[in-house]
Amino acid sequence: MARTYINELGLHAGNEVQLHGWLYHKRSSGKVRFLLMRDGTGVVQCVMVKGQVPDSVFDVFDTLTQESSFSVKGKVRKDDRAPGGFELDVIDIPKIYQIAMEYPITPKEHGIEFLADRRHLWLRSTRQHAIMRVRHRIIKSIRDFFDGRGFTLVDSPILTPAACEGTSTLFDTDYFDLGKAYLTQSGQLYAEASAMAMGKVYCFGPTFRAEKSKTRRHLTEFWMVEPEVAFNDLNDDMDLAEDFLEYIVQSVLKDCMPELKVLERDVTKLQNVKKPLPRITYDEAVKILLDKGLPFEWGNDLGGTDETVVSEQFDRPVMVHRYPSEVKAFYMKRDPENPKVALAVDVLAPEGYGEIIGGSQREDDLDVLLSRIKEHHLPQEAFEWYLDLRRFGSVPHAGFGLGVERTVGWICGLEHVRETIPFPRMIYRNTP
Amino acid sequence: MARTYINELGLHAGNEVQLHGWLYHKRSSGKVRFLLMRDGTGVVQCVMVKGQVPDSVFDVFDTLTQESSFSVKGKVRKDDRAPGGFELDVIDIPKIYQIAMEYPITPKEHGIEFLADRRHLWLRSTRQHAIMRVRHRIIKSIRDFFDGRGFTLVDSPILTPAACEGTSTLFDTDYFDLGKAYLTQSGQLYAEASAMAMGKVYCFGPTFRAEKSKTRRHLTEFWMVEPEVAFNDLNDDMDLAEDFLEYIVQSVLKDCMPELKVLERDVTKLQNVKKPLPRITYDEAVKILLDKGLPFEWGNDLGGTDETVVSEQFDRPVMVHRYPSEVKAFYMKRDPENPKVALAVDVLAPEGYGEIIGGSQREDDLDVLLSRIKEHHLPQEAFEWYLDLRRFGSVPHAGFGLGVERTVGWICGLEHVRETIPFPRMIYRNTP
Repeated sequence: MARTYINELGLHAGNEVQLHGWLYHKRSSGKVRFLLMRDGTGVVQCVMVKGQVPDSVFDVFDTLTQESSFSVKGKVRKDDRAPGGFELDVIDIPKIYQIAMEYPITPKEHGIEFLADRRHLWLRSTRQHAIMRVRHRIIKSIRDFFDGRGFTLVDSPILTPAACEGTSTLFDTDYFDLGKAYLTQSGQLYAEASAMAMGKVYCFGPTFRAEKSKTRRHLTEFWMVEPEVAFNDLNDDMDLAEDFLEYIVQSVLKDCMPELKVLERDVTKLQNVKKPLPRITYDEAVKILLDKGLPFEWGNDLGGTDETVVSEQFDRPVMVHRYPSEVKAFYMKRDPENPKVALAVDVLAPEGYGEIIGGSQREDDLDVLLSRIKEHHLPQEAFEWYLDLRRFGSVPHAGFGLGVERTVGWICGLEHVRETIPFPRMIYRNTP
Repeated sequence: MARTYINELGLHAGNEVQLHGWLYHKRSSGKVRFLLMRDGTGVVQCVMVKGQVPDSVFDVFDTLTQESSFSVKGKVRKDDRAPGGFELDVIDIPKIYQIAMEYPITPKEHGIEFLADRRHLWLRSTRQHAIMRVRHRIIKSIRDFFDGRGFTLVDSPILTPAACEGTSTLFDTDYFDLGKAYLTQSGQLYAEASAMAMGKVYCFGPTFRAEKSKTRRHLTEFWMVEPEVAFNDLNDDMDLAEDFLEYIVQSVLKDCMPELKVLERDVTKLQNVKKPLPRITYDEAVKILLDKGLPFEWGNDLGGTDETVVSEQFDRPVMVHRYPSEVKAFYMKRDPENPKVALAVDVLAPEGYGEIIGGSQREDDLDVLLSRIKEHHLPQEAFEWYLDLRRFGSVPHAGFGLGVERTVGWICGLEHVRETIPFPRMIYRNTP
């Protein structure tokens, strides 16, 4: 008999199937015994009635512990009260793969460190499962969005010879006879080079920050997608980010309602995420903060609390543009109409989830870029290849980076970013 | 006027459009001047006839150097002799963004180191462009294949506390107060944990080997996709690999014929890649080598030359299974019918491209796995979490890894793997 998965039971209503999986839970009620089997695609209740199955099968119930692996043969029965819409009337339990030792994760509450130490098992829970499926859908929608618009994927390197945004927060490694190599913090400079070759590109891979931050928004290893488009200016960049966020959120709403229900996410908050997204200047953001009585000084970057206060004024992500150039990276172009501000944009998620996108129009003038590199005390030699992009056919261009884990945290409505990635890496954790 | 891309000119035949791009090449013939513009989506010939455009526009021809960036307005004219099927009759050159300095890469031949040092510019060439587009199509087809079959993407961590396949070829980095962390060589162990949670999973990310290999098949940083399926055995694993390779190659043939033509790829060799793929045992492979007069001893791993000789006997990828367990990793299950061999499979690409897939059924017995870890002198403590998978509901399972760059090299028909990734990393190169 061919293997069937729980999420396909609807195709076999009234027929016999064989499932393979693990015992999620069991209970008995008089002469009826219930085995809840999970197989990675769902959970189904398998029902055994004494007298209707051989005693040898009925008694297997007693031997099966939580997470024991087995296969079951049975007849699929439609049952509208069942979570997946179907139950299985057991005919046989042809195989027990293993009787699991006493499983450490039980339905009772566990501390977060206890669970994090057992992340390889914790992933089996319904809630973590739901998060991973939403994460997958988000990543797929990111790729579908850019692929559908003719962008070329250009994987930027992980091992890089120089720092993109300063060296203090870099992981390094010995690279044969070539000295140190650094784990990338951003693929942007490479994406810029690729955009000069292919017009519209995106890179999408893991990035690293050796920051000593212990906040609920920080991981040392996280995934980032970075589109870059030749001939785009800041407005084009914001248009792209707006289309992009709408597409991601609406894709998740379309395909992941069961998962969002498991996570008890208030989806009305996500349904608002549609064009147009509000666009305010940094100056306007400062005014909001001052009106709220916050002690904020023009020229500073927005902190976590500032971001929360600003974003709370809106029912969807808000784009804050034209930050003071002093707090932004060397490669960002200054506004020709006001050189004190950079043509940068941060997109702040609603509900206090903070910055999920950071982007800008890039400096395309060779001499200006050279002086920025000097001002920031960066080693010019390491950037010669990047400067070449301004020597050989420089054009206006812009792009942004979206952090996957913060986006997953926001869309799933999670407290902490550590649940957004299968095996999180933080300052105090690099296991399992 | 809205921006148009060269690959969309067919939608605008007979109409005026504005393009933005770079000068790829120029030539003149009497009163007619030709500007070849590239914009990342294609190349189009822009035609100016003296007297039909203002002299000020006509004379721009002289100032434009190779790779200079400009925009051009013109009327789209169908021309079956043109590579893309269309030419542009110039009306105006409204904007010159930059006159490029003397471009170092010219149509003449350059040495490979010269080009590799200028990888950020070399990517602009038609040939590199074609490779990157095929790479993108391969990566998309990989994800589409697994997404379409209900696999869940589970990104495995890059920073890991222990080595999967020995420590001698690992990059390491200081990880705060937790000692050394290592750059992953494979996400497999994590994929196994995830398969126990989600049934069918794949991880897909960069992997690293600090090997001192200078061959044309080795990079220190390369991308690998690794599916893992609970309840699959070795035969299921080979079935999956077969479907997978057929899908990838046929997807590329369907969508990338223009790119394969640029690369002068003999596509008849790729058209053969269809099910069923030949499956031979290691013993049969050894017999082929001995029949060909090669000095091969049973028990050794196949070397590069051996792989080439074996694969040359077939017109499509060949699956070699049941290798001596001594040459295979500790986590591979031994054949119950012959414990001297492991339930492993390598898939060798034709035309001498060597191993592109390595996979196996995994050892699912706790005690056997414990003794393997001891035999291989691996630190048991570091593998406790992995051993948990055999304590709590162990099941038969199998998976494999496919190296993206070797697959790109084979499908594109390239001499060296260094052209298969945007910014290659090799023992002697980590720039640009």
